[in-house]
Amino acid sequence: MITSTANRRVKWVRALQTKRHARQEEGVFVIEGVRLAREAVASQSPVKLVLHTDNLGARERGLVNNLARLGAEIEVVSESVMVACSSTESPPGLLVVLPTPTIPSPEPLSFALVVDRLADPGNLGTILRTALAAGVEVLFLTKGTVDPFNPKVVRSATGAHFRLPIEILEPRALAQRLDGMQIWIAEAGHGVLYHEVNWRQSIALIIGCEAHGPQPAIRSLAKGQVQIPMRVSSDSLNAAIAAAVILFEIARQRGEP
Amino acid sequence: MITSTANRRVKWVRALQTKRHARQEEGVFVIEGVRLAREAVASQSPVKLVLHTDNLGARERGLVNNLARLGAEIEVVSESVMVACSSTESPPGLLVVLPTPTIPSPEPLSFALVVDRLADPGNLGTILRTALAAGVEVLFLTKGTVDPFNPKVVRSATGAHFRLPIEILEPRALAQRLDGMQIWIAEAGHGVLYHEVNWRQSIALIIGCEAHGPQPAIRSLAKGQVQIPMRVSSDSLNAAIAAAVILFEIARQRGEP
Repeated sequence: MITSTANRRVKWVRALQTKRHARQEEGVFVIEGVRLAREAVASQSPVKLVLHTDNLGARERGLVNNLARLGAEIEVVSESVMVACSSTESPPGLLVVLPTPTIPSPEPLSFALVVDRLADPGNLGTILRTALAAGVEVLFLTKGTVDPFNPKVVRSATGAHFRLPIEILEPRALAQRLDGMQIWIAEAGHGVLYHEVNWRQSIALIIGCEAHGPQPAIRSLAKGQVQIPMRVSSDSLNAAIAAAVILFEIARQRGEP
Repeated sequence: MITSTANRRVKWVRALQTKRHARQEEGVFVIEGVRLAREAVASQSPVKLVLHTDNLGARERGLVNNLARLGAEIEVVSESVMVACSSTESPPGLLVVLPTPTIPSPEPLSFALVVDRLADPGNLGTILRTALAAGVEVLFLTKGTVDPFNPKVVRSATGAHFRLPIEILEPRALAQRLDGMQIWIAEAGHGVLYHEVNWRQSIALIIGCEAHGPQPAIRSLAKGQVQIPMRVSSDSLNAAIAAAVILFEIARQRGEP
């Protein structure tokens, strides 16, 4: 059992939990808890490392065995080491390090979401989860957006990382990927009402940063603005809520699923 | 300037920030920052107390003067006292204690939202903000739901507390308030598709707790279940997201605003 936070693997996990560049250099990220670990097993992703405390139940032990079959080294750690390694205040006792998924996106695209410079990790994770449920085929992120493999994003996304392709692109490369699609941008208080747009074609929706909206290079890609009408004109919506309302209107019109 | 956390008012504010019963006994709550303070002034709510640091800009000083006109006692506090009083890690430097708003709800009701035993304060705050924007007339909460005047709820709701009536009710009293309305309950994977319901009548929507859905006494009030169809059947949505998608479909059908 590892009982020291000076342990090499413990230091590695702590760096992965806290530093974007550590995750990016190695192309790995960290998940915690049974629910996400099950998603990892279901995706048949290769797995690098499992840390767990020694009080696992029978089902959790079966899950650890399945993770070992995917290539994971298994280490038992003390409660205090798990607290040091966890990104949550109440660690679930099971932590997994694995490569960031590479999920191919369909060709050609017909339903893409672009998130530009969103700062809040909980919002980005919720958008990931929501986009998957609404039938989005690929999520494009611009540089300046919070790292999609940040632990808080991973937690809020509840496994969407294993199913939804995510690509981080410069505006120019993004323009190429969206070529031929109708591109709409969500704005508070400006543009066509979101339910008056015909979404039954190849479309991309852009959601901007909470405070300032999308940057000019991204904004210029859009054909038009869409807004969600609100009862109180001074109001705005949380970015994840605005994304959800428009994405499910798109899904409703397209008859997906 | 107050420089000690042993100060009587500082102790009072800290109790209000951390203890539901302290807020309830006195019928007051705490807001922080310029945006919420402006909402308080706009609502012409009476104000009990303002704490601020001594580095306010000209606009903030004008705001403090307006709060003083609403009856507030004004105290300048040191940075460290503000940190001790604030519910955030980066205090905005302006903190206001004021009575919980009592906003009359319309009679008769035609669009009500019921939230049953929701635990996450960020979710409840987001639901408040979203419900106001979608035209909900009153938010009913059951006992067992997180306190709507919890600091995290207040922060996520971005001022909705000053405009949307909130009532905490027992199931029996709730049944009386909803008498004559069509009552629907949101469920993951069960019931009519949310966009196939005719929402152009007097309706109430029930959103249950994240983990277990609504309690039986609340569930039995509902005429039927509604669901949001999802591309991946094992998925679910965050409670605030599910509420938003259904509330804005209701608003869309009713032509509100």
